[in-house]
Amino acid sequence: MSVLQEMSPNVKQMRQLEYAVLARQAIRIREELKQGVRKPYKEVIDVCWGDPHRAGIKPLSFVRQVLAACLYPQLVNSDKLPVDVRQRAQRLLQECCGGSVGAYTNTRGIPEIVHRVSEFITRRDGGAPSPPENIYISPGSQWALTNMLKILVNSKASTRTGVLTPVPCHSTTTLSLEGLGAVIVPYYLSERQGWELQVEELQQALDSAKGVCNPMALYVINPGNPSGHVQSRKSMQEVIRFVSEKRLFLLADEVYQECVYGENSEFVSYKRVLAEMGPPLSDTVELASFHSASKGYMGECGLRGGYVELVNLDPAVMKYIYTIFSMDTCAPVLGQMALDLMMNPPQPGDPSYPLYDVEKQPIRTALVHNVKTARAVLNSLPGFCCQPVEEVGMKPDTFYCSRLLEEAGVLVSPGCEYGQKEGTFHIRFCIMTPQDIMEELLKRLTSFHTQFMEDFS
Amino acid sequence: MSVLQEMSPNVKQMRQLEYAVLARQAIRIREELKQGVRKPYKEVIDVCWGDPHRAGIKPLSFVRQVLAACLYPQLVNSDKLPVDVRQRAQRLLQECCGGSVGAYTNTRGIPEIVHRVSEFITRRDGGAPSPPENIYISPGSQWALTNMLKILVNSKASTRTGVLTPVPCHSTTTLSLEGLGAVIVPYYLSERQGWELQVEELQQALDSAKGVCNPMALYVINPGNPSGHVQSRKSMQEVIRFVSEKRLFLLADEVYQECVYGENSEFVSYKRVLAEMGPPLSDTVELASFHSASKGYMGECGLRGGYVELVNLDPAVMKYIYTIFSMDTCAPVLGQMALDLMMNPPQPGDPSYPLYDVEKQPIRTALVHNVKTARAVLNSLPGFCCQPVEEVGMKPDTFYCSRLLEEAGVLVSPGCEYGQKEGTFHIRFCIMTPQDIMEELLKRLTSFHTQFMEDFS
Repeated sequence: MSVLQEMSPNVKQMRQLEYAVLARQAIRIREELKQGVRKPYKEVIDVCWGDPHRAGIKPLSFVRQVLAACLYPQLVNSDKLPVDVRQRAQRLLQECCGGSVGAYTNTRGIPEIVHRVSEFITRRDGGAPSPPENIYISPGSQWALTNMLKILVNSKASTRTGVLTPVPCHSTTTLSLEGLGAVIVPYYLSERQGWELQVEELQQALDSAKGVCNPMALYVINPGNPSGHVQSRKSMQEVIRFVSEKRLFLLADEVYQECVYGENSEFVSYKRVLAEMGPPLSDTVELASFHSASKGYMGECGLRGGYVELVNLDPAVMKYIYTIFSMDTCAPVLGQMALDLMMNPPQPGDPSYPLYDVEKQPIRTALVHNVKTARAVLNSLPGFCCQPVEEVGMKPDTFYCSRLLEEAGVLVSPGCEYGQKEGTFHIRFCIMTPQDIMEELLKRLTSFHTQFMEDFS
Repeated sequence: MSVLQEMSPNVKQMRQLEYAVLARQAIRIREELKQGVRKPYKEVIDVCWGDPHRAGIKPLSFVRQVLAACLYPQLVNSDKLPVDVRQRAQRLLQECCGGSVGAYTNTRGIPEIVHRVSEFITRRDGGAPSPPENIYISPGSQWALTNMLKILVNSKASTRTGVLTPVPCHSTTTLSLEGLGAVIVPYYLSERQGWELQVEELQQALDSAKGVCNPMALYVINPGNPSGHVQSRKSMQEVIRFVSEKRLFLLADEVYQECVYGENSEFVSYKRVLAEMGPPLSDTVELASFHSASKGYMGECGLRGGYVELVNLDPAVMKYIYTIFSMDTCAPVLGQMALDLMMNPPQPGDPSYPLYDVEKQPIRTALVHNVKTARAVLNSLPGFCCQPVEEVGMKPDTFYCSRLLEEAGVLVSPGCEYGQKEGTFHIRFCIMTPQDIMEELLKRLTSFHTQFMEDFS
């Protein structure tokens, strides 16, 4: 048959993920450990993904109690669950078609939840209005982003569509862009300035696109993934002026908004900065802002709930967006509910509040601690080895990660997965893990790195 | 800004769904009922979607108990849940990364669940092997189908990719095809022969594609949606010979496989028929078979779990498929688990079996009953009114559905959503609803139809 020959060239140009190699290696090592093979470690520490539960963070009881009661409504009558949990579950079930989390919802999500998302945004953004009809709940923010790219990327145009994309950038977005036939126009974040976004870099990227593609959108990730950088309000205003002047659609990936640990940094949404800049910018700049239940304290990646808020889009375009989102019917109902609970956690005075607070605080403490100790330990290590290791068919950073996994049982991801300046190599790991696991990780990494430098530099 | 002008023509050519009009109307009517507006009915019967819970079917306790315990593991120790439920939950949790349903899974799904899907298929298909690496779990079967179409549809080719598609066909697939820029090559199911698929129709469709597009795949739905027709083994063999001869990829939507009610019909999978035909066909015909946790007795649409099994694909193509599925990370974990529970329900002797059986039997009885009574009542009604009603800007079948909703509070979907032969009009509704609701529905439909015929014929 002819699938391979005739297959979409967009698909053919998609990279194979470097991570897949490491994932297979981790599966093998875990299998060996299970069979009793002796290794210098007893289990693999997996901090490769932005996946808090995988990295050892415990789910919040409040969230799980409400969702369990929605799944199995007999629990609504159980006196073992706090009364606010039972009330919350009861209300959510009334909002489901047929009173069941097993029914499809509207394309944009359960209307009452969409409404509460809109209220959350308005609160967060100091009162800037957020009409519910501009919100689409989706199975994760990445999924909503891909849908927006389907609208923006014109695969039939003679000049391909360009999207300005940060380097480094997590690989799911770059894969989506490749799969849709877009041209990735890279702009480099400044490593020396803590991975800051600089508007001159955007201009340079735009210049580089001349004659190559038709740049339609700017994709920003704030707080940065994988960089962790938090943009200042001033920097965001510059970006907004830039996209307005260059007539670019602004795609703002803001899923790490709850994860701001630095002492002098604060998350402000693009929606808010745009609203506060006033007309004409606030009435014209087209913006899509993404958020998710996968990150933050809740960290419910596996439930698959996210949303996109759309600002200043032409009503005719909004109709197409509705159709695009209709194609997959709806987001998982429990993911929609998780999003709702993230935005409306228990308040002081609620029966569930004390436990919620007791569970949330150590997560916050661990994160602040992990950021500090990880930075201190990593900065104390001598520079990476940059020897070409082409004989093993791996990029140097993948090679480093593969050895780290094999010898120390630590699974992190290589910088090449995210893009990096030529000649520089990085590793990336998730700091959303309990303190003791982070300490064990840093111990293993330090001793591995010392040996690695002896062997390869 | 220029999004609308520059937008992908694939997206621009997508139809707006007729259903959206009816959905908005239903929302208004429900709001009016809530506010006490007097109508000849107290609630809207919504049988428009293939959504059993929305239509009044109750979820199976076994499924909900296991999933609730996975969400809130304290329940694993609760003596209020049957011991097999607790054991099942414990095992499933051990199979999750970090022991949490909140963690991402592998791209293809939780490995142990993928393995059990493969065992289910092998059992179902009389022993035909089903390697786990050919299975991808997804957030619903439709999502997996769209991913397969991304591989098959070449949006860059000078001659567009064609996909042979049944008429009638549910609209999500036709929307996906349009969105990807494919040409829908319609083949008509024979209404007179109970919506049978006839190979001559396939040949005629292929002839019609000459000079228009490059036909790459045949999409079949068995059991039919919306038609309900169950293909015979002989008919499937003819289809397999046809796709082999014409070098077409076979996409088999088999999500209604549990829903076979006719006395002389039996579901057989395309995978099984292909395997039993032996080489060279069984080694060469490329097949993707889709299944879902949304239909059947379980009917868990809102959890979003489905899978695709791939047969005879080139290993190079399989690599691209892995990348495409990686883009959205993974299916919702509870949807994956629902799929597992559907394929491995409690067995006689298990503590949960008696309740499971007590809950399942009435669903089966209702379905068999609903099919019979719906057919009898509908056949007793005089023919549809086919007056053009262009003055209200609606197609005749949408007009009929809209009046039925307004006057009788019954929400069904118009045939134009699925495609139909010119000059014929249909309505479609889901029969997965309790007996009493079906009876109420038929009563309302009968009296509405009688009045409608008086008014419009």
